Amino acid sequence: MNTLDDFHDSAAIVSSGDEIMLGQLQDTNARWIAEQLVGMGVRPVEFASVGDDAEQIAGTLDRLSSRVPLIIMTGGLGPTEGDLTRAGLARALGDDLVLDPVAQADLDAKLRTRGRQMTEAQARQAMRPAGARCLPNAVGTAPGLHAVLPRTGSRERACEIVCLPGPPNELKPMWSKEVAPLIRPLSGRPIVTRLMTVVGIAESDLVKRLGPLMARDRVPLIGVTASDGVLTIRLRCESVPDAARARALVDADAEDLKRQLGVHVVSDRGTSVPTVIVQTLAARGRSLTTVESCTGGMLGQMLTDVPGSSSAYVGGWVTYSNALKTELVGVRSDLIARHGAVSREVASAMAMGGLQRSGADAALAITGVAGPDGGTPEKPVGTVWIAAAFKADQLATNEAAHGSSGGVASGALAQARSLDVQERTDGVVVDARRLSIPGSRADVRRRAAGAALALLWFYLQSSGSEPGSPPSRLLWEMPS
Amino acid sequence: MNTLDDFHDSAAIVSSGDEIMLGQLQDTNARWIAEQLVGMGVRPVEFASVGDDAEQIAGTLDRLSSRVPLIIMTGGLGPTEGDLTRAGLARALGDDLVLDPVAQADLDAKLRTRGRQMTEAQARQAMRPAGARCLPNAVGTAPGLHAVLPRTGSRERACEIVCLPGPPNELKPMWSKEVAPLIRPLSGRPIVTRLMTVVGIAESDLVKRLGPLMARDRVPLIGVTASDGVLTIRLRCESVPDAARARALVDADAEDLKRQLGVHVVSDRGTSVPTVIVQTLAARGRSLTTVESCTGGMLGQMLTDVPGSSSAYVGGWVTYSNALKTELVGVRSDLIARHGAVSREVASAMAMGGLQRSGADAALAITGVAGPDGGTPEKPVGTVWIAAAFKADQLATNEAAHGSSGGVASGALAQARSLDVQERTDGVVVDARRLSIPGSRADVRRRAAGAALALLWFYLQSSGSEPGSPPSRLLWEMPS
Repeated sequence: MNTLDDFHDSAAIVSSGDEIMLGQLQDTNARWIAEQLVGMGVRPVEFASVGDDAEQIAGTLDRLSSRVPLIIMTGGLGPTEGDLTRAGLARALGDDLVLDPVAQADLDAKLRTRGRQMTEAQARQAMRPAGARCLPNAVGTAPGLHAVLPRTGSRERACEIVCLPGPPNELKPMWSKEVAPLIRPLSGRPIVTRLMTVVGIAESDLVKRLGPLMARDRVPLIGVTASDGVLTIRLRCESVPDAARARALVDADAEDLKRQLGVHVVSDRGTSVPTVIVQTLAARGRSLTTVESCTGGMLGQMLTDVPGSSSAYVGGWVTYSNALKTELVGVRSDLIARHGAVSREVASAMAMGGLQRSGADAALAITGVAGPDGGTPEKPVGTVWIAAAFKADQLATNEAAHGSSGGVASGALAQARSLDVQERTDGVVVDARRLSIPGSRADVRRRAAGAALALLWFYLQSSGSEPGSPPSRLLWEMPS
Repeated sequence: MNTLDDFHDSAAIVSSGDEIMLGQLQDTNARWIAEQLVGMGVRPVEFASVGDDAEQIAGTLDRLSSRVPLIIMTGGLGPTEGDLTRAGLARALGDDLVLDPVAQADLDAKLRTRGRQMTEAQARQAMRPAGARCLPNAVGTAPGLHAVLPRTGSRERACEIVCLPGPPNELKPMWSKEVAPLIRPLSGRPIVTRLMTVVGIAESDLVKRLGPLMARDRVPLIGVTASDGVLTIRLRCESVPDAARARALVDADAEDLKRQLGVHVVSDRGTSVPTVIVQTLAARGRSLTTVESCTGGMLGQMLTDVPGSSSAYVGGWVTYSNALKTELVGVRSDLIARHGAVSREVASAMAMGGLQRSGADAALAITGVAGPDGGTPEKPVGTVWIAAAFKADQLATNEAAHGSSGGVASGALAQARSLDVQERTDGVVVDARRLSIPGSRADVRRRAAGAALALLWFYLQSSGSEPGSPPSRLLWEMPS
């Protein structure tokens, strides 16, 4: 599997641009294209990025064409003199560049509707290698290119080369319209993959728990990656020729992992934590608010990244200054004076204030020292308090609310007692945790937001009579 | 320059991981490493990513070692069976793997302080190719590796290979401590680069304005990239042997560009728009609040990404639901009923309400249809209203405030009149613009936040008697 000799149903992805080589631009196209290819049963075996250099582009296309039957290339199709993908492809094909009359007419029409004249630089975009064809670009001015490098001495079979413009908003519609129909016939052996989203457990602990399941020669193959405190378990089956059988093997493993990992599994389909939280709340007709200090709006941004998030998320506050903590959500200034803005008391008061003033059913609050400055010996950079507040009788599943089990509510309350969580006379539960997050300002912020969502997740999960219960210790949590 | 024959002071960057090949993980290390190398005068000429495959890793290292004298590789050093960089490097070197006693002792000590036992899998991390040395990792358990592939038939000179763990929080400290000292002696000819941040102008218009300055054979070389509506002009001089002379050429071009582009230049050092806004406000002792609907906290998050942002940004509101627009910042519900939540009236009222209730000197508000649903024929997906509100006598420079010119304030008011901007009797100016942003939900949100910052930027820039004045039409703005 995946050796240099394994060329069937494989592909390489190439991007070009001096701005990529100089570290000035993050290429995100290769990852996106790889995801599409895998979904179609084509396995990417190499990504290459090169500078704006026709000779190097040609050399890279030539080298890869002897290894894979498909190359997807991005970038270098614009109007400037640094856009050299057309020239590089022409060199690899041994072709001259010719003017494509259809592309020219299209370009001309586009510029006219925008009230612009065709410049000499723009006209360059209607050129193509003689043996290539242009792929229409509905969004931008630069057409894509499609060519076939025939089978030669070093090539086992012909290699299809597709060149697309670099801007993702142009590339993605062209992919669906022009490239996907081209690729489908190439794909053969099925690759069945599945992702699971896991929170509240360290990567090393998960690897230990999975043990022999992660063996390199196992079918399906199981791997783990970590990003901002969220773990993704990747299942992959690609050596089983029958798609239904491959899927059954992957599904059986996923079920097994769910049993083993219990409350830690947020999604067995790789769905993101914010999406699962929005969906779960919306399904129960419950709403959420946020009160953020050190994350400055990131938690709201993550929740509203989810299309349709307005069905569960009402909005909230960025109480970045202490004055706004007091004025907007009613955190008593003596609490801030006595305990500091980064404290259990203030985090709890932020969550409580948000809950009351928004009318939502649940609230998440974050206050911390994100750095690089502001740390003290007692509260070093990375110290973050997160708090979840909710009306105990409001977070239950619909099912539980109408049944006799008490659902999440009583479970959460029972759990709350064992965790020394504040339980108020008005039926509101507040659970606050102190985290100690390593890394940069960006790391601290992202992981704090992720941990707050995880805390809510543990309370939300339930199935009728099985109430949610948060682990006694969250990832990065300090013993209190 | 930058051809396949140009191997001096050049480098290649390699990353490995099936999760990268399958599109499940975005590799961000290559970009970061490229940036570091360029800063040291070493020019990256190729990035390559390959799967977890010892043979392919070895083949890639071997191929690149004949082209560049330095390879930086990341990933594949962890404890799992899929971590095959050690094996790949050993194969490229023709070495066996041996146990490194120092690395083993170090690993053992680390695990003990974490209260863990050394497992067989973890012990693998103390193995190295016989001819390589281990590079200590202060953060994680996996040491890096350093080896030299000697000069052979295909290699013009020896090639240094450095392998680092994939997690950025481990890689970055190791880079400063272990790798940078190793690389400095390699670098020769200076590469002087400079970035300029430009807003409010389309990429194609900028390219046209720059014209011959962007010629491919010019020294310094000038290029443009666009990301989320912000343009970056890249200046680069690498063929002039004298560093001071190279710097003078780049500086002269930057000055020339600043004169040509005027108000559109946010920074002539590549500083981000939020950073410049925070710094400008802080220097004047002025404060900013935000009221966000469709961006859900993104604007606050972008501002608080800036270390020290609390010196200018006080926080704000995420008024995602209509109810919160009314309850939290006092948008009259009849305005919403009559004009819709996405309207000039509501955007202006959000900004005004935020200004009054936060006590800040300026407020930015955003309300729009981010999609994928919610569009109508009158307000299709991508329709966004942004508004800036500020106290006209509060946004001036310190200089202007104490002088006789009136600074930004009177300029903004004059400009406001010509733009039909609302000017209120209480001295508050509100400027609202309707944008029509193409692309996905994520595109609409990011560009809306960027446009709001750009709008404020145009009002903020001034130098004493030269008041800021926004262009009559912002990028993506609809004629009103």
